[in-house]
Amino acid sequence: MPQVSNKGKLMPESPIRKLVPYAEIAKKKGHKVYHLNIGQPDIKTPDVALQAIKKADIQVLEYSHSAGFESYRTKLSAYYQTHGLPINTEDIIITTGGSEALLFAMGSTMDVDDEIIIPEPFYANYNGFSTASGVKVVPVISTLEEGFALPPIAAFEKLITPKTKAILICNPGNPTGYLYSKDEILQLAALVKKHDLFLIADEVYREFIYDATEKHHSVMTVEGIEQHAIMIDSVSKRYSMCGARIGCIVSKNKEVMATAMKFAQARLSPPTYEQIASEAALETPQSYFDEVIKEYKERRDTLIAALQNIEGVQVATPKGAFYCIAKLPIDNADTFAQWLLESYDLNGETVMVAPAAGFYSSPNVGQDEVRIAYVLKKDDLIRSVQILDNALKAYNSKK
Amino acid sequence: MPQVSNKGKLMPESPIRKLVPYAEIAKKKGHKVYHLNIGQPDIKTPDVALQAIKKADIQVLEYSHSAGFESYRTKLSAYYQTHGLPINTEDIIITTGGSEALLFAMGSTMDVDDEIIIPEPFYANYNGFSTASGVKVVPVISTLEEGFALPPIAAFEKLITPKTKAILICNPGNPTGYLYSKDEILQLAALVKKHDLFLIADEVYREFIYDATEKHHSVMTVEGIEQHAIMIDSVSKRYSMCGARIGCIVSKNKEVMATAMKFAQARLSPPTYEQIASEAALETPQSYFDEVIKEYKERRDTLIAALQNIEGVQVATPKGAFYCIAKLPIDNADTFAQWLLESYDLNGETVMVAPAAGFYSSPNVGQDEVRIAYVLKKDDLIRSVQILDNALKAYNSKK
Repeated sequence: MPQVSNKGKLMPESPIRKLVPYAEIAKKKGHKVYHLNIGQPDIKTPDVALQAIKKADIQVLEYSHSAGFESYRTKLSAYYQTHGLPINTEDIIITTGGSEALLFAMGSTMDVDDEIIIPEPFYANYNGFSTASGVKVVPVISTLEEGFALPPIAAFEKLITPKTKAILICNPGNPTGYLYSKDEILQLAALVKKHDLFLIADEVYREFIYDATEKHHSVMTVEGIEQHAIMIDSVSKRYSMCGARIGCIVSKNKEVMATAMKFAQARLSPPTYEQIASEAALETPQSYFDEVIKEYKERRDTLIAALQNIEGVQVATPKGAFYCIAKLPIDNADTFAQWLLESYDLNGETVMVAPAAGFYSSPNVGQDEVRIAYVLKKDDLIRSVQILDNALKAYNSKK
Repeated sequence: MPQVSNKGKLMPESPIRKLVPYAEIAKKKGHKVYHLNIGQPDIKTPDVALQAIKKADIQVLEYSHSAGFESYRTKLSAYYQTHGLPINTEDIIITTGGSEALLFAMGSTMDVDDEIIIPEPFYANYNGFSTASGVKVVPVISTLEEGFALPPIAAFEKLITPKTKAILICNPGNPTGYLYSKDEILQLAALVKKHDLFLIADEVYREFIYDATEKHHSVMTVEGIEQHAIMIDSVSKRYSMCGARIGCIVSKNKEVMATAMKFAQARLSPPTYEQIASEAALETPQSYFDEVIKEYKERRDTLIAALQNIEGVQVATPKGAFYCIAKLPIDNADTFAQWLLESYDLNGETVMVAPAAGFYSSPNVGQDEVRIAYVLKKDDLIRSVQILDNALKAYNSKK
């Protein structure tokens, strides 16, 4: 029998999705499962996007341009410019989700065995895309105690080798909710200039910032790193359009874009209907975002206050995105998360969390941490934390 | 300035799309361009698929399952079973186009520097996916003189090394239109069993067979190679839904499917609306296919007869798909194809063809060949061949 590849064996299971079969077991028992594990917002997709699909007059569902609709790229560049990002139409290739943008970025800048430095904990699928690309992730640990701030630049410099090709950040961060300060972004910019590296920034949560005093600082706004900066973006969170699978890769580096374009041509084009929806979504009124941000801010405040009330739980207040990392009074979050689904319920209800170990690439780190997404309504969040509190007591008393 | 990857430099430009800028020049001059270069059918997408999208009642455009809608996979397996392919729901992962299915198949079965044997000429993007995966394509040449039949098995065996992991075929073939006989498929099956290889079959043109005496033989129907066979499929051509970007990877090998699932989880899910359309498309009445096949058969017969009338042109009659390879009385099809767009017109009209060299991975092969897609109406095909005939005379007389 022919064998699967080593690469395939090394591909990590999604820590967000690998517990799904256990959730199905819980649901088959009739238990209600509160999904704190996945960043699937319950926010309504803007009407203007959904209506555009209904109105689309398509007779032959043709391939589109490999870089995506020109009309969409043009309007998207105008959107960025309105938000202070000096991005032109030709700096954008539309991708099938931010996922594909990451794959194109890695493929265009890194060869097999090249190294990418990523502050951890990080979005778990960075491990998957790196493995798929044959790239080695070199983690630099940020800690809950420091609120997941950028590790000292010296910690990065210690890790740079001739194989290092890029630094990857997620800003605001999934799973930490950390928002990099202007000073931190400038430090990274100086570092990539000094060592001739790419700076890849996953900015898909740009709009999700909850404190009036905080501001997002895109790598695309930093003068002097135009040839180093690569931005990853997506409509998934901005417009609650996760199922659209529309994102983009953005760079001023023409060689990078020409290279990414060859990857884009190989897969022909991104999906047509969702490009129509994404282009229309650019007309979403500001009032939509105001309401969404208000809602998420309340959810964040509700969740964090409730978690901080549980004995033995530590959590840093996220400044953006819609996740937090919580340290729980347990040994192994994998076992605990599975137990929550398989063996626990509080009046027929339980919660699903994402064990945080999968968000680290260092072994044996984050084993007592979980990622919690606050994409549920406030009442559900309060109820979820009650269940978690009771579950922790039950779990620890059975030992 | 940081440099792009060697992988990125090696990524081939799409031979189908790289002439696009010259076509744009021709169009800006006001010239009409007949597109013989790309497999974008002009056939109407089934109403049942387009209407399903209009009727979809989506409020939150959520992620779907990483393997695709279970309802879709179940109905798709029933479709296959009706067509004699013993495929169950769990043997299917829905992908973002056949493109992604190929990437998953390569990633799941091959490591960097592993080798895949492919009869050439082959679908040009196999080069791109192989480069992206770090896999080495080992071509075995099939010839126009032999009608692009399967090369002798001895020619394959000569190329097998410890690095060889798979054989990839396209059946019916893009760009040759060749349909493998049952005997040829059985020869390949015996070969992969003997050498413990995977047999990856791109069967996206399965329905496009034009002679009543011919029958498609899927690798999924061959007993004894259940653990070797991987099928690639797509809705792009079957339902004229190229822009949907919905395909699938199919295998009975559970380890392959579990591995492919990890690649699928990393990119979260395929696009939602197009899954809805693809599921609905399964209800397309047989009369749709009957009309489509009749139309393509007439187009094929029209095109081949017209091409055979041009002095110095050689072409093998395709049995399936909607392409043929034509050998032209010229030195370099790249130069000729560019000249057709940049410098030639017949009463304000010209044609765009795909130079065939990009469909070979052997260097300096197929330089005088082009791929012609017969996805235009018969009158347009006749006109296109007239233009090609005149263009060849003009091109050769200017020397």
